Amino acid sequence: MNGEGLRVLGFAGSLRAGSYNRMLLHAAQKLAPEGMTVEIADLAPIPLFNQDVEQQGDPEPVTAFKQQIMAADALLIVTPEYQHGMPGVLKNALDWASRPSRQSPMQGKPVAIMGASPGMTGTSRAQPQLRQTLTYNGCYAVPQPEVLVSRAHERFDDGGRLTDRTAAGLVRQVLGNLSDLTRRLAPK
Amino acid sequence: MNGEGLRVLGFAGSLRAGSYNRMLLHAAQKLAPEGMTVEIADLAPIPLFNQDVEQQGDPEPVTAFKQQIMAADALLIVTPEYQHGMPGVLKNALDWASRPSRQSPMQGKPVAIMGASPGMTGTSRAQPQLRQTLTYNGCYAVPQPEVLVSRAHERFDDGGRLTDRTAAGLVRQVLGNLSDLTRRLAPK
Repeated sequence: MNGEGLRVLGFAGSLRAGSYNRMLLHAAQKLAPEGMTVEIADLAPIPLFNQDVEQQGDPEPVTAFKQQIMAADALLIVTPEYQHGMPGVLKNALDWASRPSRQSPMQGKPVAIMGASPGMTGTSRAQPQLRQTLTYNGCYAVPQPEVLVSRAHERFDDGGRLTDRTAAGLVRQVLGNLSDLTRRLAPK
Repeated sequence: MNGEGLRVLGFAGSLRAGSYNRMLLHAAQKLAPEGMTVEIADLAPIPLFNQDVEQQGDPEPVTAFKQQIMAADALLIVTPEYQHGMPGVLKNALDWASRPSRQSPMQGKPVAIMGASPGMTGTSRAQPQLRQTLTYNGCYAVPQPEVLVSRAHERFDDGGRLTDRTAAGLVRQVLGNLSDLTRRLAPK
């Protein structure tokens, strides 16, 4: 963290172009409090985790992803919900980033989470799985508010912009809390 | 299910060659009760899930995997534990196989689960996540015994053979229960 502001790295666990979770991440870029910038990482180039491959050295997209995490003051993770849980795509990226165990670039990072789904529960089953993962990594997850964007198809306009005021308020609030937590955790 | 026996499709969520979970799966092939055969599917060729890709038609390795699931009477899923949860590799394969929702080849399958880890908890945090996934798919998961192979490095010999009698007994028992459940669920 430098004097000017907070650098947040954000990523979403869906790869499709029209993903509501990617729209939500882009909304967060615009709703971020003053002094916070949200850079976006793409999970598409990250291969399936294989420890035999890792032992030959991390593949280039993994190295780049880990460097982005290391350079960030905090993370913003946006999770879709597939089959009552976190998508494999997101977990797979975190499986790489979580290593080496206890010394990974994830260790100790403040993290805000959010998610969007077309159903009524708004990723309420995926987010606790993501929190389990963060606990393993010694991350400090922002506890509140829960950003559960239900009926996501009704919350964005045709240009992919978040139009729902309640959701926008929650995004603003969770990013404010992330900013606050990151500053409180920083060395005095 | 034909008159002769039960066809079980097994797969493990680790891609490394020396995986204890793959060793455990191979042990299950040998410990299967009479009349049960365990075919093994490889998750390595399955790409990251992307709904835009799916709309162009499932990639060939996904089609093959779904056909293997469809042809099986029951499944045997072996999960490592990464970061207190299911590996992304395994969840990603299931993300493809779970679709189309409510009409996927997973629907209604009887499933046995097991897992191995070098630590003391033997995948006890990954397995409940896997059960959540199975619930979504309308699968019938064998409830007992829990096959939690802890300190996995002490349970196999240099040739990758399961040498631990307690673990072997649990594998036998869960496969026996899978056989029993599959037969009870079959049309009368």
